[in-house]
Amino acid sequence: MDLRPLLAPNDSKIVVILLDGLGGFADADGGTELERATTPNLDALAAEGSCGRAEVVGAGITPGSGPGHLALFGYDPTEFALGRGALSAAGLDVELRAGDVAARGNLCTLSSDGTIKDRRAGRIASAKARPLVERLQAEVALDGVEVVLAHEKEHRVLVMLRGEGLDPRVGDTDPQATGVPPHPFTPHDPAAQRTADLLTEFDRQAREILRDADANAVLMRGFDTLEPMPSFAERYGLNATSIAIYPMYRGISRILGMDVERQAADPAEQMEILRECWDAHDYFFIHHKATDAAGEDGDREAKIAAIEEIDAIIPAIRELGPDVVMVTGDHATPPQMRAHSWHPVPVLVWGGNTGRDRVTRFGEEPCSDGMLGLRRMSEMMPLLLAAAGRLNKYGA
Amino acid sequence: MDLRPLLAPNDSKIVVILLDGLGGFADADGGTELERATTPNLDALAAEGSCGRAEVVGAGITPGSGPGHLALFGYDPTEFALGRGALSAAGLDVELRAGDVAARGNLCTLSSDGTIKDRRAGRIASAKARPLVERLQAEVALDGVEVVLAHEKEHRVLVMLRGEGLDPRVGDTDPQATGVPPHPFTPHDPAAQRTADLLTEFDRQAREILRDADANAVLMRGFDTLEPMPSFAERYGLNATSIAIYPMYRGISRILGMDVERQAADPAEQMEILRECWDAHDYFFIHHKATDAAGEDGDREAKIAAIEEIDAIIPAIRELGPDVVMVTGDHATPPQMRAHSWHPVPVLVWGGNTGRDRVTRFGEEPCSDGMLGLRRMSEMMPLLLAAAGRLNKYGA
Repeated sequence: MDLRPLLAPNDSKIVVILLDGLGGFADADGGTELERATTPNLDALAAEGSCGRAEVVGAGITPGSGPGHLALFGYDPTEFALGRGALSAAGLDVELRAGDVAARGNLCTLSSDGTIKDRRAGRIASAKARPLVERLQAEVALDGVEVVLAHEKEHRVLVMLRGEGLDPRVGDTDPQATGVPPHPFTPHDPAAQRTADLLTEFDRQAREILRDADANAVLMRGFDTLEPMPSFAERYGLNATSIAIYPMYRGISRILGMDVERQAADPAEQMEILRECWDAHDYFFIHHKATDAAGEDGDREAKIAAIEEIDAIIPAIRELGPDVVMVTGDHATPPQMRAHSWHPVPVLVWGGNTGRDRVTRFGEEPCSDGMLGLRRMSEMMPLLLAAAGRLNKYGA
Repeated sequence: MDLRPLLAPNDSKIVVILLDGLGGFADADGGTELERATTPNLDALAAEGSCGRAEVVGAGITPGSGPGHLALFGYDPTEFALGRGALSAAGLDVELRAGDVAARGNLCTLSSDGTIKDRRAGRIASAKARPLVERLQAEVALDGVEVVLAHEKEHRVLVMLRGEGLDPRVGDTDPQATGVPPHPFTPHDPAAQRTADLLTEFDRQAREILRDADANAVLMRGFDTLEPMPSFAERYGLNATSIAIYPMYRGISRILGMDVERQAADPAEQMEILRECWDAHDYFFIHHKATDAAGEDGDREAKIAAIEEIDAIIPAIRELGPDVVMVTGDHATPPQMRAHSWHPVPVLVWGGNTGRDRVTRFGEEPCSDGMLGLRRMSEMMPLLLAAAGRLNKYGA
């Protein structure tokens, strides 16, 4: 449902605390990590507010980070998508803009006859790869477009072109095989001819610049651009900002047009930043990564500790006087699976006209008793706006 | 959501136990039949797994057998449909193929002036009707198409044409009245002209063959074909087989391209068959009819006994080592109503990465506390695939 005709801006402030990978499941050993954690402050929010559970994409569907965050921000992830290029750029804190073309690159080793000897240049060490990328960035020059290179790790590098009239419909040059030459840059649409020509010239210069290095060329795949997406401000009338520890989540926020605060080192610094940006914004996205990382490691104790770390900053957030607070995950990461999963994530909404239910403890099973029910994650955004008094009546 | 891009085949085995008409409702007399039944083995699955409830088509909508099974198999019954012809053929264990045209026929009695004297030939006894149908099958011959007749019961007979270029858009010949002649076979589309002509010739021969019998013609209605439907294997990457006591459910499985095992006499024989086909398949559909029949008879005690009969085979199923087991119904059949109903059916999922919830007893009310929540039945299929590790992540 298009909320724009209903938007009623006011002075309310909404805080969304996202514990990445928060959800989990109980097994013969007992409750989930959230249920085992000692969380007096989250429990107080639950007792004073309402709880429920959210499915992020759909029944049985395990979300990646892109769909997980889109749903959190109210963008139905079956309707909107962040391409791999956009996410790669986000993860490197590189801003991909609509019209830019990005690809994932591999530093590789070509034999003297131009065939591929090693697709990853012997998994070249980051310390050796980074100067090569810097040299390319300094020396490559293309006519009328800007080239942005961002070294990721080992042989991986993001290659981005920025300028007018670019088109991502270009075939991969990485043949995913050795002993053969790289594929040429093939336009899959006549509109992509110029982009293919520019990339061909990039490739020529790169081989020249790297001719004596261990890695002497760049294979590319997954050309992508940023599909234009309605901004968060446009959809909800909110002046949002993002306070995250990892570049990926700053990047996703940036794509939706949110402000992005400086990168924080830990939740304590996130609190500091929240205080600094409090007056200038009305929606605050606080992203906590450690819960997901612990889940991926299969470390239940670490996940419990990561949850408790967020519990500890809740009083400081409440002191700022937010009108509405939501705490949830972008997908489950059960330590039993060491991976993202499809399980519904617990949701807690506090403040405004949310109302309170019987749930007094924040956890998957208590949340299944909550008044918010089991619903799609993208429905939470209108519920937050409503709780904050920011949505007018629909129909007379 | 199209699951095909996410499918990740593995060696897991999924068992679905369908108690036809399982759901019911409590009234002043106390709990539902499932709640009153003694089901230690189903309760153990519930305790170790997760429970919930499913609405088969939508709120307040009472499903027929077609929509009930389509939903169970993950085909949204508001998007896919099994026509009456397809279901009639399935119920007679006749294979209707895409392109075949089937109709429901009535053996009838025409007066000497060609008007209808009795639309059901005096509800002719099956013993008298069957030889007439056999005679028609033996003697009718049409140019270029095969005729398949299947006697159902009393005056009812399935008429099916098989061949190239057939089209079901032909009007009913049964005028649903006596004292008037049958309608001619009218094509409702020029493409159905040949089909109408073939049926007219069938009718001419049938009247000739039956001229001295009590039933001397066949009225037809509900011309239908099998709409091509994506197969179960194509949608889910599963090699499924169907173990049923009634032809209808074998037929529905066959339409979806599942293998169909020999017809079983009772749950004990179904177990025998399950053991035989275990190694060659990875999805097993076990259909139990007695629950529905008891509900239709308004016999609560019989429905309780039918549920307990399935409970008794659970240990043998567990011994085979399935990865994921689901137990549910295709619709409710409350004995109080002696009919199918719209009430949500209880669902139990055990195994894989399902997780366990607090529900320790399989029943409608306990299931309403379960972590699977209240959802559409067609969502259970992706949940089973996910629990079995057969779905990759959606989005990066």
